[in-house]
Amino acid sequence: MSDTIAYDRLVAHHRQTALFGSALALLHWDQRTQIPEKGHAWRAEQVAALARLIHARNTDPRLADDLAACEAAPPSPEGPDTPRAANVREMRRAYDRAAKIPEDLAVALARACAQAESAWERARPADDWKGFLPHLTEVLSLRRQEAEAVGYAAEPYDALLDAYEPHATAAQLAPLFASLKPVLTGLLDRIRGASRQPDPTLLRRPIPAQAQEAFARKVATAMGYDFAAGRLDRTAHPFATRIAPGDTRITTRFREDNLAEALFGVIHEAGHALYEQGLPADDFGLPTGEAVSLGVHESQSRLWENVTARSRGFWIHFLPKASADLPALAGIGLDDFLLAVNQVRPGLIRVDADEVTYNLHVLLRFELELALVRGDLAAADLPGAWNAAMQSSLGLTPPDFASGVMQDVHWSAGLFGYFPTYTLGNVIAAQLAAAMRRDLGDLEELYARGEFAPQLAWLRENVHRHGSRYTPRDLVRRATGAEPDPAFLADYLEEKYGALYGL
Amino acid sequence: MSDTIAYDRLVAHHRQTALFGSALALLHWDQRTQIPEKGHAWRAEQVAALARLIHARNTDPRLADDLAACEAAPPSPEGPDTPRAANVREMRRAYDRAAKIPEDLAVALARACAQAESAWERARPADDWKGFLPHLTEVLSLRRQEAEAVGYAAEPYDALLDAYEPHATAAQLAPLFASLKPVLTGLLDRIRGASRQPDPTLLRRPIPAQAQEAFARKVATAMGYDFAAGRLDRTAHPFATRIAPGDTRITTRFREDNLAEALFGVIHEAGHALYEQGLPADDFGLPTGEAVSLGVHESQSRLWENVTARSRGFWIHFLPKASADLPALAGIGLDDFLLAVNQVRPGLIRVDADEVTYNLHVLLRFELELALVRGDLAAADLPGAWNAAMQSSLGLTPPDFASGVMQDVHWSAGLFGYFPTYTLGNVIAAQLAAAMRRDLGDLEELYARGEFAPQLAWLRENVHRHGSRYTPRDLVRRATGAEPDPAFLADYLEEKYGALYGL
Repeated sequence: MSDTIAYDRLVAHHRQTALFGSALALLHWDQRTQIPEKGHAWRAEQVAALARLIHARNTDPRLADDLAACEAAPPSPEGPDTPRAANVREMRRAYDRAAKIPEDLAVALARACAQAESAWERARPADDWKGFLPHLTEVLSLRRQEAEAVGYAAEPYDALLDAYEPHATAAQLAPLFASLKPVLTGLLDRIRGASRQPDPTLLRRPIPAQAQEAFARKVATAMGYDFAAGRLDRTAHPFATRIAPGDTRITTRFREDNLAEALFGVIHEAGHALYEQGLPADDFGLPTGEAVSLGVHESQSRLWENVTARSRGFWIHFLPKASADLPALAGIGLDDFLLAVNQVRPGLIRVDADEVTYNLHVLLRFELELALVRGDLAAADLPGAWNAAMQSSLGLTPPDFASGVMQDVHWSAGLFGYFPTYTLGNVIAAQLAAAMRRDLGDLEELYARGEFAPQLAWLRENVHRHGSRYTPRDLVRRATGAEPDPAFLADYLEEKYGALYGL
Repeated sequence: MSDTIAYDRLVAHHRQTALFGSALALLHWDQRTQIPEKGHAWRAEQVAALARLIHARNTDPRLADDLAACEAAPPSPEGPDTPRAANVREMRRAYDRAAKIPEDLAVALARACAQAESAWERARPADDWKGFLPHLTEVLSLRRQEAEAVGYAAEPYDALLDAYEPHATAAQLAPLFASLKPVLTGLLDRIRGASRQPDPTLLRRPIPAQAQEAFARKVATAMGYDFAAGRLDRTAHPFATRIAPGDTRITTRFREDNLAEALFGVIHEAGHALYEQGLPADDFGLPTGEAVSLGVHESQSRLWENVTARSRGFWIHFLPKASADLPALAGIGLDDFLLAVNQVRPGLIRVDADEVTYNLHVLLRFELELALVRGDLAAADLPGAWNAAMQSSLGLTPPDFASGVMQDVHWSAGLFGYFPTYTLGNVIAAQLAAAMRRDLGDLEELYARGEFAPQLAWLRENVHRHGSRYTPRDLVRRATGAEPDPAFLADYLEEKYGALYGL
């Protein structure tokens, strides 16, 4: 068989699968933003039907033949990283993984996750842990079955983690996280003892949701988010999703007494969306047209949210505009505002956490889900374990399930192995920012002039346009000159918070 | 082969297909209500991918085997109209039709219609007929190919019409329409000469869209539309769509100076939605769980919109509420208001037309699309033919394409053969109303007390719950005791407008 014919067939097959993936993505988006209450029961069936179809396509035995034909062809003289070679490499990885998961398990997972997520949407506001637990137990059991089916070298958790962060392992992440922990707790202790402290009431002044939304749209537009190729809606848990090229949607939630939650939420999701909007549209459905890993994805959202939008330069540009648009902010000085948006304080909610304590939330979840997947911890025992870990790590005990173990959508959606990519993203974001300073000069000066295009262009050039052409570690090395290294994050936090709090 | 096994397999197959149909319905709904501008290009590809899949499922050769096995089984002692017999009968009809349409044509149609509809969305506000024409030409050409592929006895148009109104033919509709025309034009002439005339400014008083929407939601709720199993959004062209049981959505458009357009639009679409919400959910995906025809569907929307919501009884109940909620209406008396919502005046826009002239709009389209499908009229010559027919029928000439030949979404979406079901719906609505009066007594008295549940219960019992168990004509005969007969509509219009205008 001609390897060119085989490759063309692989491309056509993957593109078609991606179109069904679009429909699935839309079902998910609609489920979180638009669906009426009584639509949920059948939505799970619809999701399951498409998941079954996509799984069947991903495990089509003809793929194995075509992949083998491509792999048997002589290597390209242009080296192992040509787009075609990268696509064959990543299609092979995806095929091998999918082929190991029995169809019944894949369908059961899709259905159980959709049902569990709907259950979580209802259970969380009612603080109904008991009603949610059977769903969580089911989802965890199915994901553990998946880990066994996929296989692993050292740790069942790795089989799940690999789906979000290719090639990463718990054994590799654990020391990286371990090295960060003393940096974070040490910095936290010094900040708590600092004489300079933010005024937490500044960002609690009531601002109508509509005004918050209008301002957030301005900021996202300035970042380069293209609203003609996306939209902003309201959900319980913010997210970004690409339905297809030209259609990458973001969501957020608004609370009148919490400007920071919605504003930085929108900036965060817009950061994700800029990555998706920057992927090569012509490669839609192929690995070279897809984001490379969740860690790299999170590096984009965190870079915009923290490095950019919590910087002095950013607010030199935006505070006058914010004060004009949102009268509640009038009269707040730059230093006070900057300290307020960089308030460091242990809290119960991960998505509300500051840059310093955020990773402690992630480490807690990483340890708990590692134990869940190993079978060392039962879902029913999770609230106790959660509260103990929260007390030990941040000195806090949640007053209810909603602000404790039930705060995140992830586990209800089956996303075990997903959380560590958040901290990996923070590490990579700090490292990319250092490389941008090397190439673009003082980023703060650009921000202060309202110039975000150079940063976006750098990210497009060094990250977005490559899709999954390189592995995540290779991509980071090519962009920054080094493997992912927590020292960049440690340095960034020490310098930024040392200056802010006068340490 | 056991016919029970074959039937169970048919049921499972159709249910699964319906789930993919759900995803397709959601893609369409999203395309009309939510999609960002740059998402349209890929949306056509997504729609085509799902249409291809559904077409493949509808023409799966295993269906023919299973249908043959069911048809070979001895007839049920319970007669030919058992749910199972009805499902086999209608599955056979659908299979035979689908199997005649080549897959390439089905896919080309789905893609061309999605693209043409997007083009219409852009072209209509810009009055860009030239930009739209190539899309229309393509869609018409493909639909004519479909008619040839499906086959017909007398008229290519019948092959298209049959998809919307099973068993109906142009030869059967033409005399029905011909008998209505003199009734309508005669009544129109007498109304124009009447000394009593409505004050058209009453319904042109500016009312903010938000207030209109809030009131329209109240009315829809009173009718029995279940918002927990649906939602209301804004679109250029209003529609109702069932994504799945528990999820039937409606849309409308608002203009501040036109309360009637949005309000009766919502009532109309809610009438459609009540039918969908009343279909047996357990039969989702089977003919017995699906609406029987577009004519019967339209009878539901028209019954609520015109017979119910333009009646004196309805406004005895709702006018005080409307005046309280919408201060612009305060002080309008019942008689004046009732005359205003029943204003009869030839106009350019079908969806704005009154009960008397509405069917003249439909007759015009029926004649034009008959000529288009026959090949007697080219798409390029349509504006001239449209304007000539409009002048002859209603004495008006559109000042632009947007209020003439480009006003409806239907042809852009490929819906040739669809328009006549509107007038058929009006005929059936009048006939059902007469039967309800027989069974429930004076409907106006019920409306005046705000009691809409008896009417909905009657429609659920006599129409909705049957799905496609009976043919449209059988369904009407069972519910009313007679075949669809335009005399009911003629009597209804004569009596109602005679009283209103003092003829």
